[in-house]
Amino acid sequence: MTTTAGYAYDTDTASTRVGEHEYALELSRRWYTPANTANGGYLLATALQALRQEIPHPDLIAASAHFLRPGTAGPARITTETVRIGRRTATGQAALFREGREILRVLATFSDLAAAEGPTAIIGAPPVLPPPQECVNPIVDPMPGIAERVEFRMPRLPGFLRGEPGGTAVVEFWMRFADGRDADPIALALLVDAAMPAVFDLGTVPASSTIELTAHIRRRPAPGWLACRVGTRFLIDGFHEEDFEMWDSTGAPVAQSRQLSLIP
Amino acid sequence: MTTTAGYAYDTDTASTRVGEHEYALELSRRWYTPANTANGGYLLATALQALRQEIPHPDLIAASAHFLRPGTAGPARITTETVRIGRRTATGQAALFREGREILRVLATFSDLAAAEGPTAIIGAPPVLPPPQECVNPIVDPMPGIAERVEFRMPRLPGFLRGEPGGTAVVEFWMRFADGRDADPIALALLVDAAMPAVFDLGTVPASSTIELTAHIRRRPAPGWLACRVGTRFLIDGFHEEDFEMWDSTGAPVAQSRQLSLIP
Repeated sequence: MTTTAGYAYDTDTASTRVGEHEYALELSRRWYTPANTANGGYLLATALQALRQEIPHPDLIAASAHFLRPGTAGPARITTETVRIGRRTATGQAALFREGREILRVLATFSDLAAAEGPTAIIGAPPVLPPPQECVNPIVDPMPGIAERVEFRMPRLPGFLRGEPGGTAVVEFWMRFADGRDADPIALALLVDAAMPAVFDLGTVPASSTIELTAHIRRRPAPGWLACRVGTRFLIDGFHEEDFEMWDSTGAPVAQSRQLSLIP
Repeated sequence: MTTTAGYAYDTDTASTRVGEHEYALELSRRWYTPANTANGGYLLATALQALRQEIPHPDLIAASAHFLRPGTAGPARITTETVRIGRRTATGQAALFREGREILRVLATFSDLAAAEGPTAIIGAPPVLPPPQECVNPIVDPMPGIAERVEFRMPRLPGFLRGEPGGTAVVEFWMRFADGRDADPIALALLVDAAMPAVFDLGTVPASSTIELTAHIRRRPAPGWLACRVGTRFLIDGFHEEDFEMWDSTGAPVAQSRQLSLIP
């Protein structure tokens, strides 16, 4: 069994059981975004890490989070509920509170992905990327926060980082935790929210807040870099989706997510 | 103001307030699928119709439903909770119970789509379809149930309906309520679950049960036929997504949804 002690992801998403279906934790500044609030995927992962302790099935397969208020560093509480425990799947709910106010609520369904049996047909293809060592690191001087926790490799900088928004709003890249922590299903639910929004390539102001994020985890990821594609096709009156697809280092599809976000 | 009295959708999704945050209704057999259980989108719409009564914002913009058990016709209860009422958005939760057992839980966020202000850029294009009257009705002899409630027009029958699954798993078509009821945001959350799953085009058994469905409503739809595209790109060990995009009769994008489903 691999130890995960010492990795920022594990340290910063861990909580302590303080009552029936209640957990306490300290939200960390280490996952702050340039907006000076905690990354939404990080908040989501804290709630899912608490909830998983009450679910017998090992793998997150679907998490639907509605973001209620910005999250800041400091003491926080998570409440959980097991909604239904079935043979094949189990569903629970978690809510994250900061200073007594709910900042996130999530419904999540778990299963055992290693025990899944059924037909397989894969039509979607992973992005065609040069090996990570031949790619560009788009973040040369990371600001304190999530930019130090997650690293990226890109064939070239996307248009909006070169000052030339491309209007295609699709970005393909490699991603991993910077400290070498390999991803698992709940970590994927963080990582699908860790990249810069593709909508920035449409020339918007570089800020967007998540209203709802759903992640579907389709396989346990193999260790190593994750190949990612993020895209926006509909920006309407400031509302836009961010569609995220992720493959592991063996080329297997591992996650899909979509979030509905709002440009301020 | 348009009256919606008498339409099957309105009659069958209506509930009666029986207590604080509690509603009673009769689930109708009129939305049964060939599996002889209620369509999931119909169940979702009943929960959202109850919840909307407690939310000041007029338009559903994001609904995330986790399906817990099959729904059958008969007396049912809905419990609701207002999670956060904000200036621009409001979030609530609803749970649907049948015979004392929870069959569906949903988180939903509402806003005022007519008041939304912000940039617009539309990259995704609607399906190129002949006018509905030049298309094929794929359901010539509908079975009792949802096949009588929702009608479709297709340029040609999809491969799996001709006995020749195509392996492309993308289907494009027109859709509307058969009795002429125009769609609104909550009705769209039903309709995105009303079509035959695109995964059938991969040659699977013609059955699939929804685990999670998220619908994002991006505009209030204009009256008339809705142009739709549904697709599956990843069928893995029986789990598959159904991605749904919908445009209204003016060509405006109105909804996106994705569900995670399981082939039995």
